[in-house]
Amino acid sequence: MEERVEISLLLDFYRELLTDKQKDIMEMYYNEDLSLGEIAELNSTSRQAIFDNIKRCHKILFDYEKKLGLQSKNYQLRKMKDFIDYRCNLIKKESDNSEIIDLIDEIEKELTKNI
Amino acid sequence: MEERVEISLLLDFYRELLTDKQKDIMEMYYNEDLSLGEIAELNSTSRQAIFDNIKRCHKILFDYEKKLGLQSKNYQLRKMKDFIDYRCNLIKKESDNSEIIDLIDEIEKELTKNI
Repeated sequence: MEERVEISLLLDFYRELLTDKQKDIMEMYYNEDLSLGEIAELNSTSRQAIFDNIKRCHKILFDYEKKLGLQSKNYQLRKMKDFIDYRCNLIKKESDNSEIIDLIDEIEKELTKNI
Repeated sequence: MEERVEISLLLDFYRELLTDKQKDIMEMYYNEDLSLGEIAELNSTSRQAIFDNIKRCHKILFDYEKKLGLQSKNYQLRKMKDFIDYRCNLIKKESDNSEIIDLIDEIEKELTKNI
């Protein structure tokens, strides 16, 4: 996976474990797409300081993923959802029993609500 | 939920975010059921120091749960699993189509594997 995409995903899971300052910098760099120079100016600091901060955050995010594995667990759950959705569609094609079709609809809705 | 049970559950989710020493103490107190006095003796420290350490760990675990909500998300997923399992059983009772029953079996197996 491209590193920028991977860091963005990790941010989704572990954002709340960063300090407010770290959150701000990572948000500006990864989600608002500001340059290191622009972020440095907004924070009245050097480009190098921002760069170091971002590198530190990378390490923090990867460490959390190594310990908790939330991104990898989420990926597994999405694969499970696809697996079940696919089979739900097959059952709907196969069945002409409206009770079964209603039950399958409920299953699909519950999956989408939670995953 | 009784606090002892709740802390045990939180430990399951956030154990890896504690230091080795914190992990050891919490493990002895919550899983091996040692007393504060026994843990103090094993660590050559005072009962009060162990007590303080455990209280600090409580705060750390509740803070992580507040930020990441893994226990609560896991509870939601288990409720979703029960919801889907129940409907899978209804479909199996309702259907006499072996293809549909096989698909339902696959769905149930996949759910059990992941949740």
